[in-house]
This record gives sequence, structure tokens and C-alpha cells, in this order.
Amino acid sequence: MKKIFKGDIIYTKNPNSFEVNKDSYLIVEDGVVKEICRYLESIPSDCEYLDYTNKLIIPGFVDIHLHSSQFFNIGLGMDKELIPWLNTYTFPEEAKFRDLEYAKTAYSKFVIDLVNKGTTSSVIYSTIHKESTMLLMDLLDKANLRAYVGKVNMDRNTIDELCENTNDSIKETEEIILSSNSNRVKPIITPRFVPSCSKELMEGLSKLAIKYNVPVQSHLSENTNEVKWVKELHPDIENYASVYNKFGLFGQTKTVMAHCIYTSDEEIELMKKKGVFAAHCAISNFNLSSGIMPVRKYLDYGVDVGLGSDISGGNTLSIPQSIVSTIQASKMKWLESNKKLYPLSFSEVFYMATKGGGKFFENVGSFESGYNADLLIIDDSNLLDFNKFDCLERLQKYIYSGNENNIKAVYVNANKLNR
Amino acid sequence: MKKIFKGDIIYTKNPNSFEVNKDSYLIVEDGVVKEICRYLESIPSDCEYLDYTNKLIIPGFVDIHLHSSQFFNIGLGMDKELIPWLNTYTFPEEAKFRDLEYAKTAYSKFVIDLVNKGTTSSVIYSTIHKESTMLLMDLLDKANLRAYVGKVNMDRNTIDELCENTNDSIKETEEIILSSNSNRVKPIITPRFVPSCSKELMEGLSKLAIKYNVPVQSHLSENTNEVKWVKELHPDIENYASVYNKFGLFGQTKTVMAHCIYTSDEEIELMKKKGVFAAHCAISNFNLSSGIMPVRKYLDYGVDVGLGSDISGGNTLSIPQSIVSTIQASKMKWLESNKKLYPLSFSEVFYMATKGGGKFFENVGSFESGYNADLLIIDDSNLLDFNKFDCLERLQKYIYSGNENNIKAVYVNANKLNR
Repeated sequence: MKKIFKGDIIYTKNPNSFEVNKDSYLIVEDGVVKEICRYLESIPSDCEYLDYTNKLIIPGFVDIHLHSSQFFNIGLGMDKELIPWLNTYTFPEEAKFRDLEYAKTAYSKFVIDLVNKGTTSSVIYSTIHKESTMLLMDLLDKANLRAYVGKVNMDRNTIDELCENTNDSIKETEEIILSSNSNRVKPIITPRFVPSCSKELMEGLSKLAIKYNVPVQSHLSENTNEVKWVKELHPDIENYASVYNKFGLFGQTKTVMAHCIYTSDEEIELMKKKGVFAAHCAISNFNLSSGIMPVRKYLDYGVDVGLGSDISGGNTLSIPQSIVSTIQASKMKWLESNKKLYPLSFSEVFYMATKGGGKFFENVGSFESGYNADLLIIDDSNLLDFNKFDCLERLQKYIYSGNENNIKAVYVNANKLNR
Repeated sequence: MKKIFKGDIIYTKNPNSFEVNKDSYLIVEDGVVKEICRYLESIPSDCEYLDYTNKLIIPGFVDIHLHSSQFFNIGLGMDKELIPWLNTYTFPEEAKFRDLEYAKTAYSKFVIDLVNKGTTSSVIYSTIHKESTMLLMDLLDKANLRAYVGKVNMDRNTIDELCENTNDSIKETEEIILSSNSNRVKPIITPRFVPSCSKELMEGLSKLAIKYNVPVQSHLSENTNEVKWVKELHPDIENYASVYNKFGLFGQTKTVMAHCIYTSDEEIELMKKKGVFAAHCAISNFNLSSGIMPVRKYLDYGVDVGLGSDISGGNTLSIPQSIVSTIQASKMKWLESNKKLYPLSFSEVFYMATKGGGKFFENVGSFESGYNADLLIIDDSNLLDFNKFDCLERLQKYIYSGNENNIKAVYVNANKLNR
């Protein structure tokens, strides 16, 4: 099945510049981009023609770190740091997801918001609960979204209701892996973070990851107190990243680590060597007083970086708002580093929000030939006046001052999603 | 005329706590708050009863620093620092306001957005142009908004189209003062900043301010290069604040200075002594790579602080977004200061956004007896789920995750504004 989208097509092939195709045609076959043409002699009769003239067509947003179960907690408890915030707000909310009815209500609203915000691919934490995790995967699949979903694993240092038996935790994770059969919504191994996982649990999860070639996600060096705590728990291991590495959860299969604020040069080098992605969560890092990730350094080392909304440490699923906060944070880091770590440019961060994070999936986040046709139609007419703006100025205006109402349609593999 | 508003009434009398009156009655006489009652035996027959049960009722937002003429530039040019940004984007846009038709289109849209965002009082820069400034004052007055509006004064270091003759600049400013007769929309003396004002201009404006008892607004220490430039221009004067003070524009009449990032302790002391307000523009300070204002220090010194959206250095007129960014910035300042400058709390920043900035007006930003009944009706039903949230959690959720669609109605002096 062939589809042709017409409009002002913008995407990033590499971080340093935009590819701008004004008034052009995006040719899609079987949900995958074939090519972009500036001119078409005529529209072939055997294809569906979608005329979005004067609208922006951009890749769907990619969010590589978020906690779906914290959706109802958005905007609450923003006066605490990581560890007390987890204990006061987050863990009690997550405990509710043992109740499948509660999970259904919360996850249904979450999925609607994800679509409304234009996030077509995401890497998600659910909770420790197998049933509600599988329910979430089903809801995402029915909504036609692309996602990795991780049942959280925790067998120490959490509240009683969330503390798992080590073997059960591994067994239930395996059951989810074996039962999943969607092409777009797949499982991911999710040890929450070192403090809440015993060595036995981490080793068991590593075996699963390797046996079934399933990717891994976790948290790394978000907060100085957390880093100290990890050092106390594993005094014999040289640093936080090496704990994951020692127990087989650091690039043995495709891996993404969230936050990475207080990571040493040695750890960043290890990430590069093992192909580990970093999920940059600028908004959450502000809200939880965590700090500012030195993203420029990661880029200089050649580490893959994508964006994470990290709800509900982050207070919105909006990736455009994450783009703005990421640029702002990088400017403050520039000042803080005595102007050594140069601020991130608009194209660099747009790349992270699309192709950068999309690399964790396959062929996602760009309009190069062979990429999945996941795209957003942006109607920015309410943001324009009688000044003349070029396509890139329009994109910047939309990201900085538009909102979800500007998203006219969302497509995954060229299929229009219900909104 | 008596009006009674019923709902969940929240405001701040002081920065450290909220006054919460659930399911209560706000009694207003002739546009001014008389009292809040928890119970009413009956509704008097001679008054208008406005039943907003289950809605939040909060003071209208106060924005004490913004550039109305930059409204169309929102979201553009976010890759530059202050001085190049002014020359590339801002000054060329401001030059267009010589054309009254352009001004009418731009300012009409600006005023609509101000109402939609719930900002009922604001302190505004227009441009150097007398006619379009008076047009803006008229549009604000007709919209029933409360504002100070300043024709900008510049007689050096700007582009030719914006560089005024010193005497004409003073004369036109006086003409605006003499012609203004609104109770809600008043003139304010507006030397743009030291680099663009000669000594003669500043002295002339000071005389006007004192002669007519008109307040003053300007910029102070926004960017390190700007501070250096001022030092080069006035090597004989000890610091930036003292330049304004020497030429009679620093508290001789009511004064507000925007940004105040790189201000010395001596300058902060001078602000306190002269009763000069600080306008904190967190979003703009991020976007223009300016830095983070040490707000806690100003509060410790007892300086009055309000919030400024500072469009289009700031990328939105939304004061809720300014509240969020202000808290975020203060958390980064806390880390940067080795945890000496304690983060700002939600109530402290809500206070700045209402009563703190409102103090620059008279009796604005609170629901204490005698305050102007400027208020917003917030319908937050779409943000709630079947968890039970108290009024303060609902307010925090609205500020952190709501938007202008949650503002159901806007009142100034108890009169409903058109939206």
C-alpha cells in the first residue's frame, strides 16, 4: 500500500542541520519511507494521497525514559529530592497498580495523552505488577503506538508492597517476554536502579536479557545522595556504571540509562565502549533538584543521547517542552562550566528528540529511505502573523510556543492514530 | 454593587503559606474584596451571585516585566545572547511599530493572549513610538486590564530607526503622561537600559518622573557583557545600579528593575534602601543564556520581587510557566551555591506571581479586605482522577500541568473580561 504525504517536510539526518523540503512529497510504501520528492508529475492512481499543504510534517517524537504509572502524580510533590520523593509520592502510587481496574483507568488516560502529545515511540517503566504491565502493553498496541515496556524489578530498599521475591521477579519477567508477540510493543528488562536490586536479581535479569536478546533500561547517577548510596552498597566496585556492567546489565544487550548527571569520564567511556544510550531528562532533573547533565560531554565522547520526559519527575509528557528545557539547561551548563561545554543547538536537540532516541528502536525518527513513517502533521497557522517565516522559524515557533493543539494528526507506519 | 463568588478560594497573604478557603464565599463590593466567609445563611437579594462550586478561585496573575512589541517574535532567535539577540531580532521588529496598522494588529493579538493566559496586571514596555504606545494603552483599557505601559526611551547605541533625539524623547514621554487618564492603565517612565540612554536623557526622564510622580522601569545586570559595557560607558560610577541612582531613576519614584542577575551585595542593599522592586525573569534568563538570579538573596535582604515573562526573551506570556521555571531555576541555584541559597517554595513563588508583583500596583494580588477583586476561575476537572486531592495539590497540579484552557473566567475588579 502506497501513501503520499504532501507538506513542508522537516527532519534531521544528522545533529548539526535540518533537512527542509518545502512543499514536497513524502512517499511511503507499506508504512516505510521510500523517498521525498520536490516535484511529482501526477499522483499515481493506486496510492492514497494526503494533502497537508502548508502544514509542517515532522517525525513523531521519541521519549526514551518515562514512568507510565506516575501519570496521575504529574505536578505533585515538586518540593522534594529523589529519595524522599520516591518514598513519599512515587512508591505509594505505584503500589496501586496491583489493582487491574486502577491500572486500566490510569494507563488508558496515559496512552491518550501520549498520542495527543505526538509521542509515537517510547521506552516505558510500568510497575512490578505483571498483569497491569501486560495490560499496558496491550493498550499501547491497540493505540498503534511503538514502545518498549518494562515490568519493574525490585527486591530490596523499597516499601513492603513493592518488594518482590527475587525468583518470582525473574520468573514473571520471563513470562512477559514469552507471552509478548507484538511487532511494535516489546518487553524491556527493567531493574529499577542498583539500590533496589540485589546481585542475584541483577544476575538473573542479565541471563534473561541475553537468552531472549531483550534490551535493558535503568537509572544511573541521577542524584549525589543516590551515587553515595550505591558506593555504600557496593564498596568493592569502582563506580555506579560498573555495578551494572559487572552483573551483565550494561550493553550486553541494547541498554539505555536515564539521567547520567554525576557520571565520571571513565563511566562515559564505558558507555561509549558498550554502546549504552543515555536518556536525558532535563525537566525532571530541574524539578527534583538533581542537577544538569553535561550532555555536550556525552556527544563529544560519541555516546547516543535521546530525550526522556521522565514523568512524573518531569511534569509533562510533552517532548517539545523537553526540547526547550534541554536547550535551556545546556545554556546554564555552559555558564557553569566557564563556557567550556558549549550550549546545545536547536537542531542537535531536535535530533535527540527524534532520530537520536529513535536509534534505540530500529529505523525510527527520520524520513530517510527505509525509516518507519511515524510522523506528525503540525498546523501552526495560529502561531503565524503577516510576517514571513521560513520553515525552520515556523518549527522553532511551534516547539517554543505551540502546544498539542497544533498537532493535527499523528501517524505510525503511515497509519493515522485515533485522538 | 455587591458580588459574591463561591468556590475553593486560594491566595497568599505572606510568602510562606497559602490561605485556603474551601467551598467559601468571596464578598466583593464595588470591585473590591470585602471579606471571605465560610458560611452564608442566605444570598442577599441585592447582589450578584456567581456560583463556581468545585472550581479554584485564585488572584489574577501579575507580570511585572514584558515587551509587548516582541509578541510576534515569541519562539524566534533562541540561539543568541542578549546583545546580538537585540540587534538581530528585537530592534528590527520594534522598528515596525512606527506603522500604526502593524501596531494595531500586533497589540490586539497581544492583549487577547494576555487575557487568555490570566494575566490581569502587567508592567509593559512598548517601543519608542508615541502613537502606538497610546494605542496599546487604549487597547488594554478597553480590555479592562490593569497595566503600566512605558514608551521606550533610547538615544544611543541602537539601530538608526530606533534612535531618538534626546529632547523629542523626553517631550513625547511627557505628552503621553499628560494625555493619560485611565485609572487602570497608566504611564511608566522607561529608559530601556543604561547603554541606550545618555546622561541627559536619564536626567530629563528623572525630572518627569518626579514632577508627575510617575513610576520607572528599566533593566539591570542581565548579562555579564552588558555589565562590562555599562562599566566602560560610566567608568566613574561604582556600579550599574548607581548609574540609575545618580541620574535619578532608582527609587526616586516607585521603580522596578528587570533581571538583576549579576548585582553586587552593595547594589542589592541600595535596592532595599530605595524600595526598588526586582522583576525575576527566569524563562528569559534561561533562553538568552543570561544566568540564574539569586532570588533567595534578594528575599533575605527584604527586596520586593515579582515575576516577569519578559517576552520575547521569555517564550510565553504564561505566568504559571514562569512559576515552574522560577522554582526550577532556584533549585539549580541551590546546587550551584553549594546548597547555601535554599530553593524557593511553591508558596513563595505563587506569592511573587500575585501579591509580590501586585505590590507594585496598589492592593493587587491578594484577597485580603480592600484588595482589588482581580481573580481567575480555574476549572481543573480534566486534571483530576479518582484519587482525592486537596485544594493545594489541585493548585500545584494546575500550575505544573494545566494550561490556559483551565482558566474558565477572568475578572478584574469583579468585572468579567471578554475572551
